[in-house]
Amino acid sequence: MNTVTIITKKRDGKRLTKDEIEYLVKGYTEGTIPDYQMSAFLMAVYFSGMDREETIALTQCMKESGDVVDLSKICGVKVDKHSTGGVGDKTTLIVGPVAAACGVPVAKMSGRGLGFTGGTVDKLEAIPGFQTAMAEADFISQVNNEGIAVIGQTGDIAPADKKIYALRDVTATVENLSLITSSIMSKKLAAGSDAILLDVKCGSGAFMKTEEDARQLAELMVDIGEGSGKKTMAMITDMSQPLGCAVGNALEVMEAIDVLKGGGPEDIRVLSIALAGAMIYLGGKAKDPEEGKALAEQAIANGRALEKFKIFVAGQGGDPEITEDYGLLPQSKIRMPFLAREEGYIQSIDAMTIGLASQHTGAGRETKQDEIDLSAGIVLHKKAGDQVKKGDAVCTIYGSDVKKTEKALEEIQNAVKIGLERPELPALIKTIIER
Amino acid sequence: MNTVTIITKKRDGKRLTKDEIEYLVKGYTEGTIPDYQMSAFLMAVYFSGMDREETIALTQCMKESGDVVDLSKICGVKVDKHSTGGVGDKTTLIVGPVAAACGVPVAKMSGRGLGFTGGTVDKLEAIPGFQTAMAEADFISQVNNEGIAVIGQTGDIAPADKKIYALRDVTATVENLSLITSSIMSKKLAAGSDAILLDVKCGSGAFMKTEEDARQLAELMVDIGEGSGKKTMAMITDMSQPLGCAVGNALEVMEAIDVLKGGGPEDIRVLSIALAGAMIYLGGKAKDPEEGKALAEQAIANGRALEKFKIFVAGQGGDPEITEDYGLLPQSKIRMPFLAREEGYIQSIDAMTIGLASQHTGAGRETKQDEIDLSAGIVLHKKAGDQVKKGDAVCTIYGSDVKKTEKALEEIQNAVKIGLERPELPALIKTIIER
Repeated sequence: MNTVTIITKKRDGKRLTKDEIEYLVKGYTEGTIPDYQMSAFLMAVYFSGMDREETIALTQCMKESGDVVDLSKICGVKVDKHSTGGVGDKTTLIVGPVAAACGVPVAKMSGRGLGFTGGTVDKLEAIPGFQTAMAEADFISQVNNEGIAVIGQTGDIAPADKKIYALRDVTATVENLSLITSSIMSKKLAAGSDAILLDVKCGSGAFMKTEEDARQLAELMVDIGEGSGKKTMAMITDMSQPLGCAVGNALEVMEAIDVLKGGGPEDIRVLSIALAGAMIYLGGKAKDPEEGKALAEQAIANGRALEKFKIFVAGQGGDPEITEDYGLLPQSKIRMPFLAREEGYIQSIDAMTIGLASQHTGAGRETKQDEIDLSAGIVLHKKAGDQVKKGDAVCTIYGSDVKKTEKALEEIQNAVKIGLERPELPALIKTIIER
Repeated sequence: MNTVTIITKKRDGKRLTKDEIEYLVKGYTEGTIPDYQMSAFLMAVYFSGMDREETIALTQCMKESGDVVDLSKICGVKVDKHSTGGVGDKTTLIVGPVAAACGVPVAKMSGRGLGFTGGTVDKLEAIPGFQTAMAEADFISQVNNEGIAVIGQTGDIAPADKKIYALRDVTATVENLSLITSSIMSKKLAAGSDAILLDVKCGSGAFMKTEEDARQLAELMVDIGEGSGKKTMAMITDMSQPLGCAVGNALEVMEAIDVLKGGGPEDIRVLSIALAGAMIYLGGKAKDPEEGKALAEQAIANGRALEKFKIFVAGQGGDPEITEDYGLLPQSKIRMPFLAREEGYIQSIDAMTIGLASQHTGAGRETKQDEIDLSAGIVLHKKAGDQVKKGDAVCTIYGSDVKKTEKALEEIQNAVKIGLERPELPALIKTIIER
């Protein structure tokens, strides 16, 4: 086999065989195929595309390039929930305990974040004492005994994807559906779950800006998951404004607890119950997602979900008292409100701008080396559709550094649009895709 | 300026500015832009193309990346003739002395060959004593005094092109008109002539297989030449069968002398006179190419062209006696005839197959390090359209190594097609492009 021949074939719009894709991925990961041939290939894929079979092959090869997690010692149907990422998305902190309370084992390996806020692992580390590193045996026994554990990613998961993604990032070859899908799914397939639930975000704060783009991505991801032998389901959900009101690590932990207590903002509550319902269904504990939702609502109403959250936190060394005393979580010294400069209805709160401003308060990393300010972030007091009077606080910026906090405040000036008419809001859950 | 932004812009089909192209070419040549970004860019160009202005900018940047030859000390209008390359193309050996005999100064820097046969410099080195390396002052004074000198390329001509071409070769990004054009023209523009005559080959032995492809290339090259301020003219000529009968270094020198004496195969004679006519016109010594052709024919008929050839050879240390005694040129020990296996008309003699067979006799290099067997090659006794009887020698393979010669003989079995009908032959000179 010859690399130039394979590049030429893809360039000329032809289908590659599984062997050819394997030759490329293996050669690139091992270093026998240089960066410059891979980047030319990726640009050819950008233009010529890959079909379903090719994308499955690419995903499989990248999955097989590294460790594949073995969760077989955990009893029950393991369901992995994955969000394509958005602003204020703390659903894992909620749906994990809810699903676990309903009998679905939650054995999650999560990443750290690069961008708007931290990842789930960063958020959990806002809880005093919480350990996200755990020996494999302890991880498995905590899931078997307590029903839930969430740890940082260990092992060498899909190194081919890591290497290829880093190259795509600097060669303008990120935006291709097959490449995006295979990157996400190779890691999901290597994570060892039995079923996968995908929360595909669309809107200004998401990678996919339009519903149509999100739907294409979601459908391909479900195809690839199913084609690789895992039950896979996707929800397309709104990310035009931040999810819930809290953006930032400790702030999001508080809001997650609010939801587990039966409160919290409506959108995060509704979405968390829908996702938990789907997980309960995929985990075989409900006959359909609707029944799963009812079970999830029950678990919140009767306090078992909150109880499970406390057990989960305590099991990983964290202080379960935070659920009763938010003052035990990291607190920002500086709080700056953003006041409405006119009256009317909030037309929109741009998720991307809020996300970037939150990152600049210190809540998110710009480079891998950055340390996160776990207390920093933004709390919205109003959401799209709400009425405001001039001078009402629309949101508050939390930070530890006056300059950074002022900069974030300045950045969000343009994020909030106020108008006289009550706006029509985009649907929170747009579509559910299941084969 | 940012490399990823520039790649993205081209990927998305947008026009690049001269500054952006310069940033890329300069950065790549200097090593600040890595191979993997350049190859992604080249693949984006393959798909998105470049317009005339972008191609001119790319050509200029590559030209300016290295030395630009200064021929200003040579009196008269310097015309550079360039062939896109074919099998049996020894026209430079003929048109140089003819144009010089008609008063057009010929100051040519030529390359060595990689492929079918040697380049002009290799062919000249088949002449005993001939020196293709010369101090600049000697080169200039020989042209001013004798009217003609041909030397090997000196200096660092278009290093950006060298580096980019090497990358294109291994990333399946060779076949793009703008990239091909800028590669050829950057070197031509750096060669210091006042006008450029392009012989664009088409057919099986040429890079451009169809007349339409050759025409597109020729038109773009003329545009780029004119757009860069040099009078440029192109001829599209046939390369479906070898040009003339001799393929190989010493063999081609003999055939060139035949033509200068007024003999030689018809096609090489006709094409040489047409090219010389165009050079004489471009050099300001004829009012149009037709008058140039008449002057060229005259120079051959009255012996002044052959005389100029002898002066040229002697001026560079070669033995002019070779024109009278071909035995002074390198001679092959082995000669194997290829005999017709049926009677009829030669339908075609595939130029590509003959070229490769000739290379394998030792007449051409496969790698830069290979040493050329100057005596080896192939001589055709029949050309397309000729009648043959069974057992007639169609051609003879010349070599020094029995195995290599036998291999070449085997390879050409399929190059020669014989049929019952007299075939229609493609026109030798298809189009002349002048703005």
